[in-house]
This record gives sequence, C-alpha cells and structure tokens, in this order.
Amino acid sequence: MPKKINKTPSIKRLPFYLHELRMLLQSGEKVIATTALSNRLNIEPIVIRKDFEMTGAQGEPRVGYRIPKLIERIESFLGWEESTHAYLIGAGSLGTALLGYEGFLDYGLNIRAAFDTNPQKIGTCIHDKPIFDIKDLKREIDETDIRLAILCVPTSIAQKVAERIVDAGITAIWNFSYCTLQLPPNVVFQRVNLAGNFALLSMKIAEQKRF
Amino acid sequence: MPKKINKTPSIKRLPFYLHELRMLLQSGEKVIATTALSNRLNIEPIVIRKDFEMTGAQGEPRVGYRIPKLIERIESFLGWEESTHAYLIGAGSLGTALLGYEGFLDYGLNIRAAFDTNPQKIGTCIHDKPIFDIKDLKREIDETDIRLAILCVPTSIAQKVAERIVDAGITAIWNFSYCTLQLPPNVVFQRVNLAGNFALLSMKIAEQKRF
Repeated sequence: MPKKINKTPSIKRLPFYLHELRMLLQSGEKVIATTALSNRLNIEPIVIRKDFEMTGAQGEPRVGYRIPKLIERIESFLGWEESTHAYLIGAGSLGTALLGYEGFLDYGLNIRAAFDTNPQKIGTCIHDKPIFDIKDLKREIDETDIRLAILCVPTSIAQKVAERIVDAGITAIWNFSYCTLQLPPNVVFQRVNLAGNFALLSMKIAEQKRF
Repeated sequence: MPKKINKTPSIKRLPFYLHELRMLLQSGEKVIATTALSNRLNIEPIVIRKDFEMTGAQGEPRVGYRIPKLIERIESFLGWEESTHAYLIGAGSLGTALLGYEGFLDYGLNIRAAFDTNPQKIGTCIHDKPIFDIKDLKREIDETDIRLAILCVPTSIAQKVAERIVDAGITAIWNFSYCTLQLPPNVVFQRVNLAGNFALLSMKIAEQKRF
C-alpha cells in the first residue's frame, strides 16, 4: 500500500510561492531556478520541487521554472485562475474587519456582500460592501450562484447559522468562529484558528521568559 | 530515548477549550466531565484528557474538572492570566482591520497603539487606537516595556521592518505577512497564514466540484 502523504503543509505553502513568483514577474524575471527560490524563501530546494510537482508544474534542466507557466499551474491547482466570490455572514467586529481587508484580493477572493440580522446594519454599506438581511440570502444565492460563505458570527450561534445558510444554498464555509461545525457531507469547510495561532506564540514567549 | 511529542495541535486547541469553559461558567456550571465536554466539542475524550494533562490540570474521579480551576490552569499555562499588551506595526488595510477586531480581548491581547510611517496617519486614531511614528517605537518601548509586535506590513518590507523593530526592543512578533523572518535567536515569532488556510478550503472546493 502506498504511504499516505499529508498534503496540508504543501498546500499551505502554495500562496507563499505565488506571492513571490508574482513579485519576480513584476520585476521582469521570466525564469527561476529552484535554488534561487530556495534562497529567497528559506525553504529547502527538495521541498519546493515536491510542492511544485504536486501542482503538475515541471522545471526544465539548466533553466528552472518558467515563471508565468508556474504561476498558471499553481493558480489552476488551487482553482484561483478566476476570482472566487463569497458572502460574509455576520458584520460584527471581525466581519467588519474582514470586509475592509483588501489582501483577500491577492488570492482572488472577492467578498460581494455581507449578511446580518441587525436592522441598523441592513441596508447600509461597510467598506463599500452592502449589508443585506440574512433572510434574503437564499434569494441572492439563487441569483448569483455564490456558494461560499465566510462565517464571522459568535461561536455560540455558529452551528445554527451554518445550518441556516446551508439550507439557503451555501456549500462551502470559511469558518472564523471557534465552533467545530457539524454539517452534511456535501458541504466543505475550513476553520481559521487565530486564537490557536496566538497560543503558539504565547507558549514561545513563556519559554523565552524562562531564560 | 523518549518519543518527541508534537504539542502544536494540543496548544492550538487550548483557546477553544477556554472559550467553552468560560461559557459554561457563565451559565452557572461549576464542574464538567470529560465525556460531557467531548460531546459539546466533538473532540475525543482521550484527546481532551491529554491536552488538559499537558497544562497540569487534574480531574477528580466521578466529578470531572472544576471549571474555575481548569480555566486558571489553562490561562496560566498559556501565560494568559494577565493581559498581553502589544503594538501593531503597519496601519494599512489588514492593520486597520485588526485594530478594530475586539475578539483579541478574548485571549487577553490588548493592542495599545499602532506605528506607521505615513504622515497622514501619524497623530490620528484608528478604532480608538493612537497611530504613532515608527521612529518613536524605541522611546515608547522604553516607557511601556511592551515587547510584542503584530506585524502587518507588506511582505516586501517585512524583513527590514522586523529588523528595525527588533533593534527598537521588540522580542516577540506575530507575523501577518507572507515573509519567513530571519531574526536573532532571542526573538520569538509566529506567522499567521490566512492565504494558506484559504488554499486548503479552495482545494476542498475543487475536490467537491469534481463530484
């Protein structure tokens, strides 16, 4: 039986390569050797090669990778050739922050609108994005066929809201709450654990203080 | 030789437990059994027990864990008993978003001020946080002894800015840029890879579309 490979670390590195490759392209570079990229990114050449291999990209001996083609391969592997449109659910503190974050465009993620239940927010705009009534989500999805939601509601109601938006037609959720969602198998989701990431830093700080 | 255990997943779960335990305490609960917590969080009891063991927390047979004590143990393990004060570096799109995000207070993280080089921002407030000139960082650190920085500058200048703030006295960096920082061994840092997380979701969406 072939060894099962955990692709997660490789996939998480892809946007990092993309970012660097786009910068190189912008500054006029056309090809890049693995060793040169390795030096720039501080990642082992063998790791870079394996990561690129996963996307189907192929280097040429004594030349390296053709940058435009490599970018295309990575984008296509990730499904990032075209913009990904999304709805944001919950225009509270975090939701508002994310509506204002332009960096999502780097990976083709475009938040088209937000949905909330607060009558004081509904009908207004936050960072130029319209805020709609959550009741109208189904109607919007029927019109736009946008199936991705960025979930920014409090953890205590995250499961309930997730079920509701799935009923309305959402099939993919980027979950910024603490909640471990329980959803039908046809729905995909991924959680961002900012607090967990900060916990890792906190442990390093605690360790640092001990010396 | 004892097997080396990767504590990262356990540490990343701790804020999740904390959140749930605080909610239970708020609703009047005093003790919790592992199995009850397991059902609420959808995490195996054995995993929960091992995670708590790591923090030094001990359950009592036929009782479970005393919630206030358990919260205290986890907070103390993470160094979260008291507020952690931080400076934010780079009040651009992401920086502004983070300045407005109140959820950091859940894990005791308090952004005291932001630093930037833009004369139009310096001297103003964003989300009630003052924006100072990056030139004044050293003077501020000398006064406040705040050593933690949240780095939100563009990736292309992240390394240079990181070196500069380390020179000014910063010893811990929460890095929101793509940059893999190269810093002296006495400086600790942790990167948030939002794009990498979104890449994981994108792969699941691509997979989903194939069926």
